Amino acid sequence: MKGVIAKEPGGAEQLVYTDMPHPELQHGDLLIKVHAAAVNRTDILNREGKVGYVENPIIGVEISGEVIDPNGNDDFKTGDRVMGLVNGGAYAEYAVMPANRAMHIPDSLSYTDAAAIPEVFLTAYQTLNWIGKLQKNETVLIHAGASGVGTAAIQLAKRLSDAKVIVTAGSERKLEFCRQLGADIAINYKKVSFDQEVLKATDQKGVNVILDFVGSAYWDKNYASIAIDGRWVLIGVLGGSTVKKVRLMDLMKKRVQLTGTLLTPRSDDYKSELTKDLISQTNQMFENGTIKPIVDTIFSIEEAYKAHQWMEQNKNIGKIVLTIN
Amino acid sequence: MKGVIAKEPGGAEQLVYTDMPHPELQHGDLLIKVHAAAVNRTDILNREGKVGYVENPIIGVEISGEVIDPNGNDDFKTGDRVMGLVNGGAYAEYAVMPANRAMHIPDSLSYTDAAAIPEVFLTAYQTLNWIGKLQKNETVLIHAGASGVGTAAIQLAKRLSDAKVIVTAGSERKLEFCRQLGADIAINYKKVSFDQEVLKATDQKGVNVILDFVGSAYWDKNYASIAIDGRWVLIGVLGGSTVKKVRLMDLMKKRVQLTGTLLTPRSDDYKSELTKDLISQTNQMFENGTIKPIVDTIFSIEEAYKAHQWMEQNKNIGKIVLTIN
Repeated sequence: MKGVIAKEPGGAEQLVYTDMPHPELQHGDLLIKVHAAAVNRTDILNREGKVGYVENPIIGVEISGEVIDPNGNDDFKTGDRVMGLVNGGAYAEYAVMPANRAMHIPDSLSYTDAAAIPEVFLTAYQTLNWIGKLQKNETVLIHAGASGVGTAAIQLAKRLSDAKVIVTAGSERKLEFCRQLGADIAINYKKVSFDQEVLKATDQKGVNVILDFVGSAYWDKNYASIAIDGRWVLIGVLGGSTVKKVRLMDLMKKRVQLTGTLLTPRSDDYKSELTKDLISQTNQMFENGTIKPIVDTIFSIEEAYKAHQWMEQNKNIGKIVLTIN
Repeated sequence: MKGVIAKEPGGAEQLVYTDMPHPELQHGDLLIKVHAAAVNRTDILNREGKVGYVENPIIGVEISGEVIDPNGNDDFKTGDRVMGLVNGGAYAEYAVMPANRAMHIPDSLSYTDAAAIPEVFLTAYQTLNWIGKLQKNETVLIHAGASGVGTAAIQLAKRLSDAKVIVTAGSERKLEFCRQLGADIAINYKKVSFDQEVLKATDQKGVNVILDFVGSAYWDKNYASIAIDGRWVLIGVLGGSTVKKVRLMDLMKKRVQLTGTLLTPRSDDYKSELTKDLISQTNQMFENGTIKPIVDTIFSIEEAYKAHQWMEQNKNIGKIVLTIN
């Protein structure tokens, strides 16, 4: 079969779609004929050789496709349409996925829609609900509101928690998209100081939960934006990792809970539990369209390098998807 | 009545025991004749004028004593022996305390023992159980093991969670005391690098929970000591508040939950709930001596300045208590 690997660690031009060994089916796995895979920032880090979470040389961590061999798993049969996280190996004709984290695709969704769900909705759900413990009617600040995780988080925060949602983004087009998804307040971080807007919008109290993809560049403003007893969840450092001055007494005064998290390196059990919990909360909503996967652009798998370049240019609203077969 | 105030913000010599207005009984309060009050670091900050959590000019946040007026609260009657947190006003002949956070003193304990319980056991319980979510058989690192909170935390971690307890302290006398309270491993931070000892003792995995009173001076070593998915609870900055370099990606890689907390400025409701939960878990253990308040030195209230000096010299093992009446 064929799959996408990086010839050498490096830029998008290193990606090639080439002959690779067929995946080996282990106990508990489903064998899946892949129809679509979505692109994630962790794929770019893998391509660059910067993280070693995934042993599979084939890039990619999420797919949608058709079960070819249920391998004795009672919840699935040959031909079932499934989506979910894989431990690497997504950009390929065939992939294996632990059955206990596979999700049935709602009938109303296409394979390209479905591939846009697992990573960002699981990350947003984990961040908002498991770690951020977002409560009904609390306020959440979602940075990069138009990103894959951002668009998922806006919808989950509104539909599951009835939260007040404040987002940041860098263009009017992105801000308007966030508003249409349900964001109550959308802030152009290039034009105004987002912390001041957050304080204005919250009666000077700040937000209860922050989804932080940015890290050091926003450190002081995020601190200014968070409420007493706020939960600040760090899921990316697109604006730099190193903060030059952290005043611990500040964290004590506001009783901040700062949590760093990553989804890809977590255990199989964790991913399975998280998947089950997300599905139990959202299955109906995906089915009837109350919550929607947001697909920005679709590339064929031969153009995986273009998909990575598109993400690196930061132009996407929602997910970038590769189609296969 | 008489109470201890600071004539001017400043050193221990500013403390005077002088005539003050009788406390005003509000709805829900008990009026208490104080028999003992214990000394806390927050009292020193108040004396220095550095924090404004407590409006009462009379120093002190915890007492034991006898109910003089139950004020219509059904759970208490005149003459009941009680202990608990007050909103300032502890170092005095009389004090008021919201009834919903008053605790009955077990028969086996004296007033001086009882005064040594509320602040440190509530703080240790909040830190280990509510915030740190310490689980059975996990490992916890308790800095300043011989301090008031340290001695409480060692006992709670062993008796309630059957945790593996690692402590740090700066003298053999203190380390031996911690071992007798149940600490499994006691590290002299002046002689060895505590993080290396922690890693040795945990099969290089690190600890699940850290009780951090120290802050910036221990930042890097605490990071080295914490396990993946560890909970790092910041309750003091005795070693400095400002960390000059924090790498957020490190927090993400280990998926650390860093939480700053303070007890004194929390709401009345929070203190009431925390008190109820602590008592439900520990009442029997205090009664039968399985858990013990640790009293270091007793001063009379006229010698409050000496009590503060004693704490500032850092010589105490456990609590410093003032007796009144």
